[in-house]
Amino acid sequence: MKLPKGYIVNGVNCGIKKDKNDLGIIVSTYPAHCSAAFTTNLLKTDSIKVSQQHLNKTDSIKVILVNSGCANTASGPQGYKITLDICSYLAKKFNVKKEQTLIASTGVIGVPLPKEKIFSGIDKLHSIVESGKVDCMNFEKAIMTTDTVPKIVWQVANIEGKKVSLICFAKGAGMIGPQLRVYPPHATMLVFFLSDVNISKKISEKILKEKILPHFNSFSIDADMSPNDTIFFCCNSSANNKKISSTNKSFEIFAEMAESVSKKIVQKLLFDGEGVTKVSKIIVKSSSDKVARRIFDTVSSSLLVKTAIYGADPNWGRILSACGRSGVEINIDKVNIFIGPYQVVKNGQNNFIKDNIVRRIMLKKFYEITIATGDRKSKDYIFYTTDLSKKYVDINSKYKT
Amino acid sequence: MKLPKGYIVNGVNCGIKKDKNDLGIIVSTYPAHCSAAFTTNLLKTDSIKVSQQHLNKTDSIKVILVNSGCANTASGPQGYKITLDICSYLAKKFNVKKEQTLIASTGVIGVPLPKEKIFSGIDKLHSIVESGKVDCMNFEKAIMTTDTVPKIVWQVANIEGKKVSLICFAKGAGMIGPQLRVYPPHATMLVFFLSDVNISKKISEKILKEKILPHFNSFSIDADMSPNDTIFFCCNSSANNKKISSTNKSFEIFAEMAESVSKKIVQKLLFDGEGVTKVSKIIVKSSSDKVARRIFDTVSSSLLVKTAIYGADPNWGRILSACGRSGVEINIDKVNIFIGPYQVVKNGQNNFIKDNIVRRIMLKKFYEITIATGDRKSKDYIFYTTDLSKKYVDINSKYKT
Repeated sequence: MKLPKGYIVNGVNCGIKKDKNDLGIIVSTYPAHCSAAFTTNLLKTDSIKVSQQHLNKTDSIKVILVNSGCANTASGPQGYKITLDICSYLAKKFNVKKEQTLIASTGVIGVPLPKEKIFSGIDKLHSIVESGKVDCMNFEKAIMTTDTVPKIVWQVANIEGKKVSLICFAKGAGMIGPQLRVYPPHATMLVFFLSDVNISKKISEKILKEKILPHFNSFSIDADMSPNDTIFFCCNSSANNKKISSTNKSFEIFAEMAESVSKKIVQKLLFDGEGVTKVSKIIVKSSSDKVARRIFDTVSSSLLVKTAIYGADPNWGRILSACGRSGVEINIDKVNIFIGPYQVVKNGQNNFIKDNIVRRIMLKKFYEITIATGDRKSKDYIFYTTDLSKKYVDINSKYKT
Repeated sequence: MKLPKGYIVNGVNCGIKKDKNDLGIIVSTYPAHCSAAFTTNLLKTDSIKVSQQHLNKTDSIKVILVNSGCANTASGPQGYKITLDICSYLAKKFNVKKEQTLIASTGVIGVPLPKEKIFSGIDKLHSIVESGKVDCMNFEKAIMTTDTVPKIVWQVANIEGKKVSLICFAKGAGMIGPQLRVYPPHATMLVFFLSDVNISKKISEKILKEKILPHFNSFSIDADMSPNDTIFFCCNSSANNKKISSTNKSFEIFAEMAESVSKKIVQKLLFDGEGVTKVSKIIVKSSSDKVARRIFDTVSSSLLVKTAIYGADPNWGRILSACGRSGVEINIDKVNIFIGPYQVVKNGQNNFIKDNIVRRIMLKKFYEITIATGDRKSKDYIFYTTDLSKKYVDINSKYKT
């Protein structure tokens, strides 16, 4: 595991959860600028509200606090004030300005953050940071909820003679149907990109918007977009490369690295989705992005499609029916559907591929479903979704109790 | 059980299924006019396509054939022709015009109707009808798929001295998120209203549209609108009451009966939903029908809300979060949510009702969830939905295999 230069990350238990880590910290020893994207849910955690204010004030971020076990959302009139108090305490302890701190949270909605526990957790984290101890796994464990495996991806590139690294920590297994928008104008998916690259804020935002976000906005586990979804993309210049401030060769190298890391993290999120046993790549061939997304949204949220994927049941009629009720103007008699290489639907009708052949594909852990609307000038739109297992129901029927 | 005058109904096994009934018939000895409503899914069973054509040609319906075990949808280029052949055979056998026959189907998508088996089933049914044998339960069994209980409701009223009856046969447990539209301008929910009332076609359509459909369009089990949803509402005048052709007192008595029967049937459909253990009445208080429906659609299709209802988990944050991602313009800080009599969310925030108190309500088989948008001039919009259990996943992961 390769943490970029100039960062310290670690995690502790502060008592929100019984034994597991529940509070993580990222410290950038050199000020980092941070591009961010947040949930588009009208309901927003107080952690996002406060982080947005800080990002409005400064391009110089030094400390990010992340807790799991409590969403810090809709937790009463006190919730917002507690969040401000925590950031003040954090800033004081680490001797930075309040606006140089960011906060992200995940867990049950409606529970206020336990201020005293968090204060003592911050004290512990401060001592650890002071001693210079770095532990990526401790941080990752602190942000996990129903996740069963840690999700960390890192990559290193050579940019004009300098070694530049990018690491991404992510969590999120349920309540995953993200639609994020780049701040300034979107889990509980929490994603932290840390890099030591020297890059202008403007160009880093371009990379977030064009190379990172599309991957996070094109997958769904349960379609339940969370009030807490957050991506922070921090760059602290410690690699000392010549500043990337235009779309030159260096930009291309770094952008490609960001895209590659994003793709790998999204795959990790998909395969560790709550109760997930199978992942499908959904390719929609359509002339319009809007139509493609609407078809994906309907197919990927259809309980009948998801349970068929779970059971490897070659019931393609459910996919065709979901297309038909998706509310888009398509000619259903021109729709073609493939499962793996097999065309199961031809012009809206059964193409009579034997069920056992299709089932063989559907028994795989990963396969493609292609839905072609029959539009003349169509383009491929790529999405990913998961199955719906009894384990998902189990996990989510007793989350709070 | 009280079948209205002038109808014969029965059912047989014709070999689509192994042992169970799979082919049902309704014969009206006097010609009936039939108002109909069909799915708004772009994908439509050939049974609906052919029935629509027949309804376009005549107001005099005599025979309705219904099969289960095969949806007769997307079953290849031959599917439509087989449907026409079946109606021709049916018409000839019963000595009626082709357009006096209607057909409805439910089952797996993509499988053509087995013509020869259905022909021999029609032969059997013809002999039974000739002998005048009526068996409502045999008919109901013939239209059931994953239904575990028969769903038949009937009522009798006195209209100007004449006894008028209305009976409703329904099936449907999964793929239930109906949105029907009255023919000529919405299964697999199949619903058959049969009455001996003497009423004008125009007034019967008004009753279908205003008193029957709203109840069927306001509930959801899995939100998977089927290509086969069909409601037939037949009236054959056999009661000999003075013809109802305006919105007079007699209209009111009959309309009230139609509404009462509709409500009861919808409750039966809900409680027999696939794997359903709990039903919630969702009351949305909003100034707009569109907003109310969008909120209901999002809440009732949220896997997290449905699994929380299943587990009686007082995780109301999932309901609030679903409101926030529903795509409607509401002020989330004004939203109030009640579970049973307890206000769990006040102005978008936790109202700190103890979890065990809310859980006590949620352990009931039936309870209300009220979502108030905080609009000034709001109205109550009533919907119903169900939980999502492991049994639902079980049933639907091996439907076809």
